Amino acid sequence: MPSPVSFALIAVHSLKLSLGDRSYAILIGAGLLADQESYATLPSAPLAAIVTNDVVAPLYAQRLESVLKQRHREVVQIILPDGEAHKDWASLDRIFDVLLAHGCDRKTVLYALGGGVVGDMTGFAAACYMRGVPFVQIPTTLLAQVDSSVGGKTAINHPRGKNMIGAFYQPLLVVCDLDVLDTLPERELSAGLAEVIKYGPIADPAFLDWIETNLDALRARDKDALAYAVRRSCEIKAWVVGQDEKEAGLRAILNFGHTFGHAIEAGLGYGEWLHGEAVGCGMVMASELSARLGLMPPAFVDRMRRLIERAGLPVRGPALGAERYLELMSVDKKNEGGEIRFVVIEALGRAGVRPAPDTLVAQVIEAHSG
Amino acid sequence: MPSPVSFALIAVHSLKLSLGDRSYAILIGAGLLADQESYATLPSAPLAAIVTNDVVAPLYAQRLESVLKQRHREVVQIILPDGEAHKDWASLDRIFDVLLAHGCDRKTVLYALGGGVVGDMTGFAAACYMRGVPFVQIPTTLLAQVDSSVGGKTAINHPRGKNMIGAFYQPLLVVCDLDVLDTLPERELSAGLAEVIKYGPIADPAFLDWIETNLDALRARDKDALAYAVRRSCEIKAWVVGQDEKEAGLRAILNFGHTFGHAIEAGLGYGEWLHGEAVGCGMVMASELSARLGLMPPAFVDRMRRLIERAGLPVRGPALGAERYLELMSVDKKNEGGEIRFVVIEALGRAGVRPAPDTLVAQVIEAHSG
Repeated sequence: MPSPVSFALIAVHSLKLSLGDRSYAILIGAGLLADQESYATLPSAPLAAIVTNDVVAPLYAQRLESVLKQRHREVVQIILPDGEAHKDWASLDRIFDVLLAHGCDRKTVLYALGGGVVGDMTGFAAACYMRGVPFVQIPTTLLAQVDSSVGGKTAINHPRGKNMIGAFYQPLLVVCDLDVLDTLPERELSAGLAEVIKYGPIADPAFLDWIETNLDALRARDKDALAYAVRRSCEIKAWVVGQDEKEAGLRAILNFGHTFGHAIEAGLGYGEWLHGEAVGCGMVMASELSARLGLMPPAFVDRMRRLIERAGLPVRGPALGAERYLELMSVDKKNEGGEIRFVVIEALGRAGVRPAPDTLVAQVIEAHSG
Repeated sequence: MPSPVSFALIAVHSLKLSLGDRSYAILIGAGLLADQESYATLPSAPLAAIVTNDVVAPLYAQRLESVLKQRHREVVQIILPDGEAHKDWASLDRIFDVLLAHGCDRKTVLYALGGGVVGDMTGFAAACYMRGVPFVQIPTTLLAQVDSSVGGKTAINHPRGKNMIGAFYQPLLVVCDLDVLDTLPERELSAGLAEVIKYGPIADPAFLDWIETNLDALRARDKDALAYAVRRSCEIKAWVVGQDEKEAGLRAILNFGHTFGHAIEAGLGYGEWLHGEAVGCGMVMASELSARLGLMPPAFVDRMRRLIERAGLPVRGPALGAERYLELMSVDKKNEGGEIRFVVIEALGRAGVRPAPDTLVAQVIEAHSG
């Protein structure tokens, strides 16, 4: 537990994601999960459901239920099996079944307590249950705090592709409690750092410098460093999503490293590598592609690979073979007319989306896998 | 087949459903399905999918595919088993599987060719596939033309309740071809008339008079009568949905007769009675409830029952027992805080939503079932 002094040092930052009448606050600070004040702006409703998984539930579900019981007459807990392998229809249907069994109605508030998988599934369940109920994101992993809980992308996986079935559906509120990161396994912390690192090359060179300087503090879970990393990541994400909620263009840059990363995840079977690990390695490949397209100097690839390695992430992809990578990438949602489209760095702090010749992509894969 | 003269008599009506940048046209006329002109305003895309069922496919799928092949490089047909019993996740997943197998991307257009079940499922599939692809409604039943294809309510059923899982997701275009009603079975025509009749008491007393006068012509499939019925129904629906897309208030009036009707459908098992049959009988009960609440005179109940009976619809509900009806109605989406809410007629042409005492509802059910 952090000392009371460190509590006092960390202010609660409240960002706003601006989407007209679907705008919402992102709260970042210590001790927010069990603080009644965090939820003060939410609409009242007799029923609420906490959706979480069997790893997070023993740590935080009871504490959250206690505070929510001051707002709701009845709080149902829905505990799903942990892991990307369970981000499927069966889990979603279990949520629906419990909600219906408890007479949950259109006003019932769903609280997603967990990492990206819980957040994506709870958000999609909220989007579909009775054609839409309110929901709140309470991300418990670094990855979810800096990326997946913000922006309203919700989904489940399909055997033929990751996040293929989903909705754009915004939460009412995001509560990033930095204290919950204390219980995060080392490997998950590193996975989250992949998405933090991502924001540098696509949007903010100064942030990339800051991450390089503060990486050791971040891995040591220094609260001030984490607070800044979460805040700056959410600021950039909110800025991008506020301009392009449904990924008509700009938003796709947030998928830097994800095209290669999704192929790794699908190729190995969901859950073998963590999403952030696959994205880390995918960013090395996407940086290499940017260099081979003549957009960035080779030194940029080295810089990215070194940083990703220092974050405790894999920098070489599994030996699936270039052909298999290409096949897996051919079902990516960014694709158009059968052409694979990649997020590349066009200049430090600026990304774009473009196709690339298969032979070039194959060279990139060969250079950074196996 | 209607004579060329009757073709000339029926103009193509184009209504507009106004929802800002999600506004769309509803085309009503003869011969529209196979007319290239009907689709002229749609965005171009290399791939398209026709989603239909095994009853409609042999009648119209080939004709539609031929005309769409002039717009799209490849047109995939997805033929689902017919009937409300198949409005479930298994059918939805089959759509996703075929779309993914064919490399369908975010620009792929889905065409819903069929009745309410096909339209609701295709719309929901379009809402979820890659978080949303464009879709077109080509309703082939009277019920779908006058009600379910317009307004963007999409859903599948859950074993615990009808339409519990879904989305508000608007089509790009609705094409109501009056000619396809020629092949509609008698029973389905009557089911569609239930939704036509509905619009009278909730919104337009003059339309109720018109239906009473023209009911025989409608049942004889007179094209002019059908054209007017479809047009006036869509006008009223578009007016309601344009004010309240997501059913925050007014839109609920479109569910007149549906609370009782859904209980009948769920109680007998989906597909035993047609949706329109259950709604027909449900409107008799909801009229009776309106009378017993002192809102309408008893003569109104007789008027509605007579008209619904003349339309070829059942006017007595199955003998499930009032308790079972109440239990089934307790999962209705309109409910709030565990209280069942009913659409009632407050004055001819004006409806409202309100709770009612269980004992009164039980009396209504006893009077009109068994």
